[in-house]
Amino acid sequence: MILTTASAVFPSITLDSGAVIAPVEVAYETYGSLNAAKSNAILVTHAFSGDAHAAGEGGWWTNMIGPGKAFDTDKYFVISSNVLSGCRGTTGPGSIHPETRCPWGMTFPVVSIGDMVRLQKLLIDHLGISRLLAVAGGSMGGMQALEWAVAYPESVAAAIPIATTARHSAQQIAFNEVGRQAIMADPDWNNGDYYGKRPPARGLAVARMVGHITYMSDESMRQKFGRRLRAPDQFEVESYLQYRGSKFVDRFDANSYIYITRAMDSFDLTERGALATLFEGVPTRFLVISFTSDWLYPAYQSQEIVSALRSRNCDVAYINLSAHYGHDSFLVEVEQQSEIVGGFLASTFQHA
Amino acid sequence: MILTTASAVFPSITLDSGAVIAPVEVAYETYGSLNAAKSNAILVTHAFSGDAHAAGEGGWWTNMIGPGKAFDTDKYFVISSNVLSGCRGTTGPGSIHPETRCPWGMTFPVVSIGDMVRLQKLLIDHLGISRLLAVAGGSMGGMQALEWAVAYPESVAAAIPIATTARHSAQQIAFNEVGRQAIMADPDWNNGDYYGKRPPARGLAVARMVGHITYMSDESMRQKFGRRLRAPDQFEVESYLQYRGSKFVDRFDANSYIYITRAMDSFDLTERGALATLFEGVPTRFLVISFTSDWLYPAYQSQEIVSALRSRNCDVAYINLSAHYGHDSFLVEVEQQSEIVGGFLASTFQHA
Repeated sequence: MILTTASAVFPSITLDSGAVIAPVEVAYETYGSLNAAKSNAILVTHAFSGDAHAAGEGGWWTNMIGPGKAFDTDKYFVISSNVLSGCRGTTGPGSIHPETRCPWGMTFPVVSIGDMVRLQKLLIDHLGISRLLAVAGGSMGGMQALEWAVAYPESVAAAIPIATTARHSAQQIAFNEVGRQAIMADPDWNNGDYYGKRPPARGLAVARMVGHITYMSDESMRQKFGRRLRAPDQFEVESYLQYRGSKFVDRFDANSYIYITRAMDSFDLTERGALATLFEGVPTRFLVISFTSDWLYPAYQSQEIVSALRSRNCDVAYINLSAHYGHDSFLVEVEQQSEIVGGFLASTFQHA
Repeated sequence: MILTTASAVFPSITLDSGAVIAPVEVAYETYGSLNAAKSNAILVTHAFSGDAHAAGEGGWWTNMIGPGKAFDTDKYFVISSNVLSGCRGTTGPGSIHPETRCPWGMTFPVVSIGDMVRLQKLLIDHLGISRLLAVAGGSMGGMQALEWAVAYPESVAAAIPIATTARHSAQQIAFNEVGRQAIMADPDWNNGDYYGKRPPARGLAVARMVGHITYMSDESMRQKFGRRLRAPDQFEVESYLQYRGSKFVDRFDANSYIYITRAMDSFDLTERGALATLFEGVPTRFLVISFTSDWLYPAYQSQEIVSALRSRNCDVAYINLSAHYGHDSFLVEVEQQSEIVGGFLASTFQHA
């Protein structure tokens, strides 16, 4: 298992907005071996704050990727890349603009989920893979899986969108907006021009705290923290959120927070037509998963996708898994998810 | 109907913490007339950001208080006061410390829901009322109604706790903590010492934005905003939250935000014993109301109160009203609530 992050650089990428980024770099990792027929490649797509490091120690889906796991690296070649506008090795607002020789900051062009997938397509082509066995991801990763199936249907045998939606709701946009406003309210943000200076650490920490609450459930928070005190005047849950907020600042760039959340908010497959019409004739098999306690990406959003697929007789399996951890269930409560994903991949691989 | 806010000053108040505030001022309004028997007085208790101005133009419960309304001012004498540690005429962190002649700021003592109610009791005594017909309020107002029934059972014929809880959950504490952190992250907060200088407006606005999301429901936000754009790069919901956040700064003090949310978070009736034991022998009648779409104060929290009351054969009516507006339903979707509260008050008044 390779545990160092690789990097690929492409001459340019043209974005949905028409803007061009040239050159463009993408950080990625791969696990397992590509077979001779190049038919066993799976792309896992990360959620908002993830990166290319999906498997191995500290990997965001390490409980799902590895020998004998759902994404079985004894059988499959798993690829994970950091998204465009990220801050973990892929070109983003913190990267150096080739002409100005300064960080892009807020001059970085607006990026969409479609643009993130376009860069992944460049990477997959570069790796010599013409058709992925599967694209799988949760949350924003699920948006990418949906985008792959719609944008490159012939290049994806199966899509596994988990705990996701075809479009962000007003509530989802609102929570992201609070995070952005928290960052922009920090004087250290300085309109995004803070590289080499003090970053907007306090604003970014507050943004992360809001996010964390939405990733958990009322029940999981009660089980994990209840009303236990950390100090005479501090609840455990307060201390936990402060800790997670301050740790986040060490590994994430505030401008990337703004760009990536904007990409999620602007994602709306239905802008291109009715969902059912978009899925018309798509040969991709789907496995859609939601979680009962996920109130950030409620099951009805997955069911909207499933209904559209079924209305066009697409091949779709759906399960609303009983789970307690809220939105984070796809990352932490993976026992049932593993079994279902493993079985779905095996049957796809057999028939591909 | 009196529409100017009155004020009462008492020599001192001793808080749960043992601290003494002397003197202490409370802002209040009354509507309707006290009858000769002084048996028709109703105290309405406000939620987190409310104030004494409950009825008349701009009043926070104007749709519930007035002639012919649920709190019928042709029949009842309605009293509304601003809470201790507030910023709308009642002594709080923005008040002048009598010795230092400077604003208290963060030297203001910690305040509890019990302390807020203790000040209300001083006011009620001052008005010559020995027994209230009812105490009614939603959210933090409901906590005060519960506190009244437990602390002064002989002084309250009926309690109407709405959309509330006997103790804040980890999730409720967490959302409040995000608000506090947003304020404290603002350099203008300056450890609470900003009076006469620039207040922490940006932090307070972010705090308010988080609050607003939790007061609405996924469904009401979809109905109100959907994915409609305000500008090419701005959703309606973003613009709305920014507007509400910035308006809040004009009428609310950031330190009061910190003190009042801390009072809510520390509220836990079960600290004094099992809920059922606390209600043992309480003669107060209860009407408990929750709302189906309220995810901030979910119905199970009201049901916990109702179960405890029923286990001790207390007089309790409970209804989980079907409503779409989330937690704010008690303020905005009042048709069913009015009918139920009106009927409950009439029957209490008849038998009192």
